[in-house]
Amino acid sequence: ALRRNAAGAFGPDLAKKLSQLVKMEKNVMRSLEMVAKERMEVAQQLSLWGEACDEDVSDVTDKLGVLLYEIGELEDQYVDRYDQYRVTMKSIRNIEASVQPSRDSRFSSLSLLSSLLLCTRTNTPRGKQKITDQIAQLKYKEPNSPRIVVLEQELVRAEAESLVAEAQLSNITREKIKAAYTYQFDALREHCEKVAIIAGYGKHLLELIDDTPVTPGETRPAYDGYEASKAIIQDCEDALTNWVTQNAAVSAKLST
Amino acid sequence: ALRRNAAGAFGPDLAKKLSQLVKMEKNVMRSLEMVAKERMEVAQQLSLWGEACDEDVSDVTDKLGVLLYEIGELEDQYVDRYDQYRVTMKSIRNIEASVQPSRDSRFSSLSLLSSLLLCTRTNTPRGKQKITDQIAQLKYKEPNSPRIVVLEQELVRAEAESLVAEAQLSNITREKIKAAYTYQFDALREHCEKVAIIAGYGKHLLELIDDTPVTPGETRPAYDGYEASKAIIQDCEDALTNWVTQNAAVSAKLST
Repeated sequence: ALRRNAAGAFGPDLAKKLSQLVKMEKNVMRSLEMVAKERMEVAQQLSLWGEACDEDVSDVTDKLGVLLYEIGELEDQYVDRYDQYRVTMKSIRNIEASVQPSRDSRFSSLSLLSSLLLCTRTNTPRGKQKITDQIAQLKYKEPNSPRIVVLEQELVRAEAESLVAEAQLSNITREKIKAAYTYQFDALREHCEKVAIIAGYGKHLLELIDDTPVTPGETRPAYDGYEASKAIIQDCEDALTNWVTQNAAVSAKLST
Repeated sequence: ALRRNAAGAFGPDLAKKLSQLVKMEKNVMRSLEMVAKERMEVAQQLSLWGEACDEDVSDVTDKLGVLLYEIGELEDQYVDRYDQYRVTMKSIRNIEASVQPSRDSRFSSLSLLSSLLLCTRTNTPRGKQKITDQIAQLKYKEPNSPRIVVLEQELVRAEAESLVAEAQLSNITREKIKAAYTYQFDALREHCEKVAIIAGYGKHLLELIDDTPVTPGETRPAYDGYEASKAIIQDCEDALTNWVTQNAAVSAKLST
């Protein structure tokens, strides 16, 4: 762990921050998974407790258990989609990491002084800084060396490589970050709207519980909600199945 | 731990199941809290990473960080409301636990045989079964004992106590279970609709990222989205503030 921390501390800064983000998202996923698992367990326990209660309470808690279990399953599906978002962010990290070594090479190949003197751009590509450095040394020591021309051509190629790498990073970062968060927000919205639908049907179920207080010894009227509770579950399942992004209920209107 | 498990195994069955549910809900809450915490950390890390990127990516990731952090805060608020649901379920457990000892007394005070012979109702109140047993024994051993009349009056009082306790349990269970789940579903719906709102505004933010590919060496047009991104955050905050249950967007219509 110590070695890893030390390596991280000297590693590419930008890629390090994103690496950290990708790692932290793994934690979010694990916790979401835990919520899903525990939600399903709670759903089953509610049904189990309700079994010993009167018919109406027993039927309603059983059906509530079905709905709460469904929430757990949706949470599990959301975790899978969260992982897709995370994998997309990881691909930005990978391109950053592949561009970064060239940016950092000056620190390993040059003295601090020459790097202070020579580095004007922060995005110095692999070898580019080294070549610039060699040319400067040659011009000072052997101003007429034919190697200067060779190195200058090499520098042009390195410049080109640098420009391509930076353009790639710029293009891919933008493309991927949009894709990742579009995916994340679409998944989140779908998940949330579906859970809100379940919550709505859950409230309908509660209406089937007869909460008129009885006096001691009084018998409650027989429960006749079995058909109604079955229909509520069916309506809920249908609403979930028929949910489509195009008909998302929650809007996010812009004022301007 | 062993002792506690053993005690649980012989404890009141109904109250035990609900106790278990209440405990499991505590776990759900802890995991939800963890998700909220990690969500806020991720939000900050995203802003931190974006700082070093180009202006558009930097501004948008910063604002995405604001929205994701807001989701974490909403999750925290939801946990608080989840606890209110849990506390309400706990009050059912408490009334169950206070009614239950009378139901179970036959197992401790009578032999298995007499309990098999004499128990017709499962909800035997405190002492009721014991008195019935004493009367039966007396009628067999001393059929003319004046104590039989005293015991029979005691039995009537015990019957009454039992009926009251059962009516209380029935009334309170129904009232509290409705209150608990109404609270839970209202909180869930509010939470979900608000997060869906945030997801919608998050997608608007993404539109500000210029993802037109650039060729190597080409400079991107200057970013001019600062006003727009600020407005999106403001619109989102307003939408969250103005959200009211009455205008909930997601509906749960019944087919019948």
